[in-house]
Amino acid sequence: MKNKTRTQRLGEESLPAVILAAGEGYRLRGGNGGLPKPLTPLLGITLLERAILSCREAGIREFYVVVGCDEERMIHYIEELGRRFGVSVRAVQNPNWKEGNGTSALASSPYVNGSFLLAMCDHLFDPDIIRRLIEAKDGAQSCLLAVDRRTDQIFDLNDATKVRLDGKAITAIGKGITPLDAVDAGLFLCRPDLFDALEKAKRAGDGSLTGGVQRLIGKGKIRAMEIADRFWLDVDTPESLSHAKRYLLARVSSSREDGFIAQHLNRPVSRRISALLADTRLTPNAITVLNSLIGLCGAFLFSLGEYVWTLLAGLLIQLSSILDGCDGEIARLKFQSGRFGAWLDTVLDRYADVAIAAGISYGYWLTHPEPIIWLGGALAITGFILASYTKKEYALCYRRQPPGGLPNKFIKRDVRLFALLVGALLNRPYEVMILVGLLSHFGIVWIFICAYRQGRHELQGRKTETL
Amino acid sequence: MKNKTRTQRLGEESLPAVILAAGEGYRLRGGNGGLPKPLTPLLGITLLERAILSCREAGIREFYVVVGCDEERMIHYIEELGRRFGVSVRAVQNPNWKEGNGTSALASSPYVNGSFLLAMCDHLFDPDIIRRLIEAKDGAQSCLLAVDRRTDQIFDLNDATKVRLDGKAITAIGKGITPLDAVDAGLFLCRPDLFDALEKAKRAGDGSLTGGVQRLIGKGKIRAMEIADRFWLDVDTPESLSHAKRYLLARVSSSREDGFIAQHLNRPVSRRISALLADTRLTPNAITVLNSLIGLCGAFLFSLGEYVWTLLAGLLIQLSSILDGCDGEIARLKFQSGRFGAWLDTVLDRYADVAIAAGISYGYWLTHPEPIIWLGGALAITGFILASYTKKEYALCYRRQPPGGLPNKFIKRDVRLFALLVGALLNRPYEVMILVGLLSHFGIVWIFICAYRQGRHELQGRKTETL
Repeated sequence: MKNKTRTQRLGEESLPAVILAAGEGYRLRGGNGGLPKPLTPLLGITLLERAILSCREAGIREFYVVVGCDEERMIHYIEELGRRFGVSVRAVQNPNWKEGNGTSALASSPYVNGSFLLAMCDHLFDPDIIRRLIEAKDGAQSCLLAVDRRTDQIFDLNDATKVRLDGKAITAIGKGITPLDAVDAGLFLCRPDLFDALEKAKRAGDGSLTGGVQRLIGKGKIRAMEIADRFWLDVDTPESLSHAKRYLLARVSSSREDGFIAQHLNRPVSRRISALLADTRLTPNAITVLNSLIGLCGAFLFSLGEYVWTLLAGLLIQLSSILDGCDGEIARLKFQSGRFGAWLDTVLDRYADVAIAAGISYGYWLTHPEPIIWLGGALAITGFILASYTKKEYALCYRRQPPGGLPNKFIKRDVRLFALLVGALLNRPYEVMILVGLLSHFGIVWIFICAYRQGRHELQGRKTETL
Repeated sequence: MKNKTRTQRLGEESLPAVILAAGEGYRLRGGNGGLPKPLTPLLGITLLERAILSCREAGIREFYVVVGCDEERMIHYIEELGRRFGVSVRAVQNPNWKEGNGTSALASSPYVNGSFLLAMCDHLFDPDIIRRLIEAKDGAQSCLLAVDRRTDQIFDLNDATKVRLDGKAITAIGKGITPLDAVDAGLFLCRPDLFDALEKAKRAGDGSLTGGVQRLIGKGKIRAMEIADRFWLDVDTPESLSHAKRYLLARVSSSREDGFIAQHLNRPVSRRISALLADTRLTPNAITVLNSLIGLCGAFLFSLGEYVWTLLAGLLIQLSSILDGCDGEIARLKFQSGRFGAWLDTVLDRYADVAIAAGISYGYWLTHPEPIIWLGGALAITGFILASYTKKEYALCYRRQPPGGLPNKFIKRDVRLFALLVGALLNRPYEVMILVGLLSHFGIVWIFICAYRQGRHELQGRKTETL
């Protein structure tokens, strides 16, 4: 029930998706060990899984996967998928798959009534494109084709299906069209009109989807929806598979939350580690826990107070800082993001920070047994936790992101842990920790100033508005 | 601009309000030192201010206040209000005010076009009633009168205007009606029809609002909107003023967030303090800061490590725990709630908690100079802050309140500070702090368990839903 409610809240109806997975994909076979193309693994999940999960993220819960080549193997595999993903997935056989992908779309006609989404199993795409197609559907009396105007950025433009546009109307489609206005992104929001058009094209000897679409164009029954800067990729060759891998990794390994160190040092490394971890069965939450344990090891080594251990501790916490990116990256790569994971990650990070600060304080206290050392430790612990706390509280009170600004750059976790690594290298972890702790408190004061100013601005706005 | 946007987002149009403040209010004059009734102070603000601010909270930005008795004094006062509250407030004179409150409503007719809200300056009410009237307006082709079916709970039923209902239709209105179905709550959503009806009633010698409403009933042009369990109060006599004061204090001094100690010990005291503070110019934020300083004094006294100071410290932090309720109570009483205040209160509470834990640790360390004392202190500090942190993070991730349950009752601030007072009385503040710190960490584990279970439930729900 939970998911149904969420789907409805997003303003999306329950719409079935037809996914075409019948072709041979011979160009990819060389590079994937002879697997059927839809079963080609890409960063831990197959192309077909990725297509289904992308649609699921946009709220789709009912799938028809059209199979042809390697039929038996595919049907067996598809039956598994629905159970695993908590959605309805059904295999649809197309004995005529060799005649073209239009016949595959046609094979789904007994299963869908009314509108449906049509996707290709070898296309990767931003789930947001589907959301926009569904939104655009309500106003439209025709089929909608997602098109991309960034023709200069297509990986293999030669192989792409091009379209010519007149406003939102499509005037021509095909591989050989020049001049071209945009490229077919492989996502359609279809009405049953498509089946008639495909039927006619097939009778005329053209079994391709493009053939059907050309007939829809003739009747003015298909329009374009521009995907703007949303991403999609077509995977046909070993080269485009490598490109897709690089692209996806770059896409998941960036976050608005990243500080300077995360952006320039941690992410380039975590991305490579994520590429390896994606192929294992390690879940994002397992990585989160593992990562905290590494942080705790670092805290313990700091507490020994000797340079060699301090050095190792510094390296461990920097490793943990790098791995801190991997759980989120894997989650986004494999569609395993969840609220529990986000909560766990943040809370365990805070515990690890406290342990590290306590370990550093203890290690320093061994040679400087003064109570002031512990007060300094309390100052740092408080700064580390409260820097994050005040930002969360700001997000809750103001229902928007906390203010940016230079002071905020110093109180991010990646910067903090890197500073401690530098402190460890210099054998001055305690002094650096106190410095970072102080900067954290200044960051909190900075948020205070921003919040206070904003409060005054809003009052001012309210006064001048009505006078 | 900010406020306009917020108003529109709530689905409310900009609607003017007419507030009747022309009467003599002779029954209250004895009890308020001869002030005009609308200027009678109630918990720091006058009745008229309260009426305007209640409407402003429901999104209304344009006010016409009809004055009659003490005209000059009132006009001068009203001109001030608009500037102070950042809304448009205009005084409307009614030279015929002695003929009845219907003539006062009529006096506003040159100023309003279309729908408007009609309220009485001597009525207190839940702003939510206005929001509901505005929502109900769109569907209705007639005036709407807010009515209260809880006739057994009216403070002075004799004096109230009663109505008889047939479904949502009003069939009779007046003070002497029996049997009665509900009581007029003094809030109308009016259409210009009302002015015609009042004009006719006036010509027939009836200058009362009830007279006009009776004529609307005759034409079927007024309907009732039930206010359900929302509050309203009519202030006519010194007794009803005292009743209103008690009622408002009880209303603002409770919160879902309150723990056991807050509910049964702190609130009954803070309510009395708020009643006194409301009459001063102390703002809620000033009380928040003052309160933190008292907490810091307590922390300092704890750090001295002697029983007499520890005892005083325990009492101070309990005082601070009580005052922690006052800022919110004053803010709600005087319509001074704001996001900055909420943020500041929470963040300063965390700083005070840290200082108290550090002070207790230091005081104990003076007689037990072991490093483990400080590790215990770090454990407690972490528990105190993270108990709150994990709940905030839960609210952000899950967009709902964190789970309740017994373990949560022990990690609320009121319980924590009271436990430390008990510890101070027993001269065992450190031991009690460690215990409370441990309980806080258990509370965090409890939220973890709840979040984890919920995650599994949701997955289960998703799976069974579609299979």
